[in-house]
Amino acid sequence: MRVRNKPGAKEKIVNYPQYVATQESAGIWKGKWQQRFKKIQPIHVEVGMGKGRFITKMAQNHPEINYIGVEMQTSVLAAALDKVILADLPNLQLLHVDGSKLNEYFAENEIHQIYLNFSDPWPKFRHEKRRLTHAGFLKVYEEIMWPNGKICFKTDNQGLFEYSLSSLSRYGMSLEQVWLDLHESDFDGNVMTEYEEKFSAKGHPIYRVEARFNESFLTQQQKK
Amino acid sequence: MRVRNKPGAKEKIVNYPQYVATQESAGIWKGKWQQRFKKIQPIHVEVGMGKGRFITKMAQNHPEINYIGVEMQTSVLAAALDKVILADLPNLQLLHVDGSKLNEYFAENEIHQIYLNFSDPWPKFRHEKRRLTHAGFLKVYEEIMWPNGKICFKTDNQGLFEYSLSSLSRYGMSLEQVWLDLHESDFDGNVMTEYEEKFSAKGHPIYRVEARFNESFLTQQQKK
Repeated sequence: MRVRNKPGAKEKIVNYPQYVATQESAGIWKGKWQQRFKKIQPIHVEVGMGKGRFITKMAQNHPEINYIGVEMQTSVLAAALDKVILADLPNLQLLHVDGSKLNEYFAENEIHQIYLNFSDPWPKFRHEKRRLTHAGFLKVYEEIMWPNGKICFKTDNQGLFEYSLSSLSRYGMSLEQVWLDLHESDFDGNVMTEYEEKFSAKGHPIYRVEARFNESFLTQQQKK
Repeated sequence: MRVRNKPGAKEKIVNYPQYVATQESAGIWKGKWQQRFKKIQPIHVEVGMGKGRFITKMAQNHPEINYIGVEMQTSVLAAALDKVILADLPNLQLLHVDGSKLNEYFAENEIHQIYLNFSDPWPKFRHEKRRLTHAGFLKVYEEIMWPNGKICFKTDNQGLFEYSLSSLSRYGMSLEQVWLDLHESDFDGNVMTEYEEKFSAKGHPIYRVEARFNESFLTQQQKK
């Protein structure tokens, strides 16, 4: 989804450096993200946070975790920033960069967990590489995550979910748990995104998977 | 499902040793199953074949594969035997044993592919070990299959499918492809089981996964 930039969005982002790291400034925080939070705690990242409902609620519900919402679209990030300013939480930061380059902004082992929520399905095969669960992205996530780091992915898109289960698995990740109808399951503590709330009213199922990187001998060697 | 034995089922099975190997006779075929077929070809096994519609049609459609249908319930196997006698195919055999002990009846590397169709979901957690996609079964399958052997599993049961995706993955298998609505997909050559035909008329989705064992260094060592 390409969104026309709202006037003033860029300026707003520049005016709140305490909440948002941008492409220009983010490089200096690589390996030092804990300094942007009040407490040193595990960092969870949402890639493609959209308007920020999910990450803001998660940060409110889990003060023991430090959250970073990543979004590359300026207007969308500005909308999330409004929520973040209002919530004013010591454990929530935003990052205005392209998700495919996260390894330029995070060091090895800096992230504990990654959330992918209702990512763009890119249904055409020739766009496969743009899907956030494509091996190219998984490689970047693995590089910046702790050994055995976890990815939590949810979507309403059947094709993207079929693809993602297979992609995560073929990458060597272990599918710890799968939900084929999240809202009808006994999953506790689901925080809905803006999109999820609208969509679920139609009664279609929400799919979810939690997958872990396997700390292989090879991975260990590569990280050394 | 426990089924009361039909009168005459046992006798029928004993009368057709050219089509059915039983618990008593099957041990002698371990490592020699190709001798029971007209041609030496890859062997595909259906564990829990029920009344045999699937395996018989598959054998008709794929003369280049040798098929073995495994079923432990006497009356159900006898019903399948009726179809097998009628079809009289050179590439179809039945095996009347418990699926959890397949390694007593097959040698290492004897099987290329395993089909699990609409297996009993055993929904209670205390019955988890009875599910045909439980790690205990996967270990037995792996023992008798070629390296990189494939399991094709389909079911209409959401809970069993969620469990199975995770179980196969956590065992270290690679999920090659996943279908969340098989009958609405572009999957070619689906052969429906008796149950599938009845069930799909209700419009519920059929789930399917193809998963491969990974030929790990460890596996290689263990097999030596």
